[in-house]
Amino acid sequence: MHQISPEMQSCIDECLRCYQSCFGMAMTHCLEQGGKHVEPSHFRLMMACAEICKTSANFMLMNSPHHKHTCRECAEICEECARSCEQVGDMQDCVEACRRCAESCRKMAA
Amino acid sequence: MHQISPEMQSCIDECLRCYQSCFGMAMTHCLEQGGKHVEPSHFRLMMACAEICKTSANFMLMNSPHHKHTCRECAEICEECARSCEQVGDMQDCVEACRRCAESCRKMAA
Amino acid sequence: MHQISPEMQSCIDECLRCYQSCFGMAMTHCLEQGGKHVEPSHFRLMMACAEICKTSANFMLMNSPHHKHTCRECAEICEECARSCEQVGDMQDCVEACRRCAESCRKMAA
Amino acid sequence: MHQISPEMQSCIDECLRCYQSCFGMAMTHCLEQGGKHVEPSHFRLMMACAEICKTSANFMLMNSPHHKHTCRECAEICEECARSCEQVGDMQDCVEACRRCAESCRKMAA
Repeated sequence: MHQISPEMQSCIDECLRCYQSCFGMAMTHCLEQGGKHVEPSHFRLMMACAEICKTSANFMLMNSPHHKHTCRECAEICEECARSCEQVGDMQDCVEACRRCAESCRKMAA
Repeated sequence: MHQISPEMQSCIDECLRCYQSCFGMAMTHCLEQGGKHVEPSHFRLMMACAEICKTSANFMLMNSPHHKHTCRECAEICEECARSCEQVGDMQDCVEACRRCAESCRKMAA
Repeated sequence: MHQISPEMQSCIDECLRCYQSCFGMAMTHCLEQGGKHVEPSHFRLMMACAEICKTSANFMLMNSPHHKHTCRECAEICEECARSCEQVGDMQDCVEACRRCAESCRKMAA
Repeated sequence: MHQISPEMQSCIDECLRCYQSCFGMAMTHCLEQGGKHVEPSHFRLMMACAEICKTSANFMLMNSPHHKHTCRECAEICEECARSCEQVGDMQDCVEACRRCAESCRKMAA
């Protein structure tokens, strides 16, 4: 019987946490603050990050061998999103969620 | 063997068209135009519309009897989104996609 | 500035937990066990449950007033899914995740 | 102002068509036929294919530069899914949707 390893479960958790942070912050904090928070390339990056986090979590939940590829892409987009959130400022929770997810995804992709 | 009726296939098509229109326009046109296009309640409505359209399409694709409930909710949100897009202006394609989807979903929900 | 209430955050957490349980169990445990675990109406119900949990979480994360309607539908599908998992047997984690999510969603829908 | 190129729109269309085919066939035809149609690795592949098709469509709809990476992964999974559907048999529509999507995604990824 299939058992998710503790490492994979931890990565699923980080992906879903980062998903929540990016999607939730974009839809509330960013829209309410406006200005550079809704600058197209930043806002799209947050949405792209949410999307790839969800997909990577799903690939791990379904035990697909392709999760290594989605996790590698997820790590890249999370790092890029963390940098963009740092530049915009006032988004420390999101920066941390992205960094933790990126680290966890890099391990899964290895 | 399960066969999707022509009416249901048509509703799936409208849902996926409206999904594309709301999500795609929000992520490109609205972010690039700024101003009232990224006003929180309008932008969220477009994203909520995209989400419920996708879910209604999925419930029909999986032949779930609960599709009637998601289609009813979808019709309501699509109508609301169409009105919001009309007020914002310059979003005629999205208005039409929402109206067509709402009409099709009302029939499925009946 | 928008702040998610503790009650809503708790409901988001339950929705994402139930989502993980239904989607993950369907894609691993159910497919590997076969038999009544892949009986169409049971399997679809698990997937419909995962879908509406994700949508309800998203509506709350984006602070959409329509979350009350998706949470009401989510509570119904979760209860139905819990009963189906009990009949199939050997799915206690999923039964509990569905029951907790249903209870939390009923409160949000009230 | 952002304009989706005809090539990209065509790839979005193929991705959403393949998504519908894989998800819809898995949830109806495969569950109803049983046997090798619900063999775990085949069924998961159909679901992984649906997921990456949706994600690739979303990345193109949001005009994310990362669409090249998701389209490359999508092309690989679509090819694998097409072969699996051919082996299972009686899934010609799905085979064709996967092949067309793979070809379109390869062009976008180039």
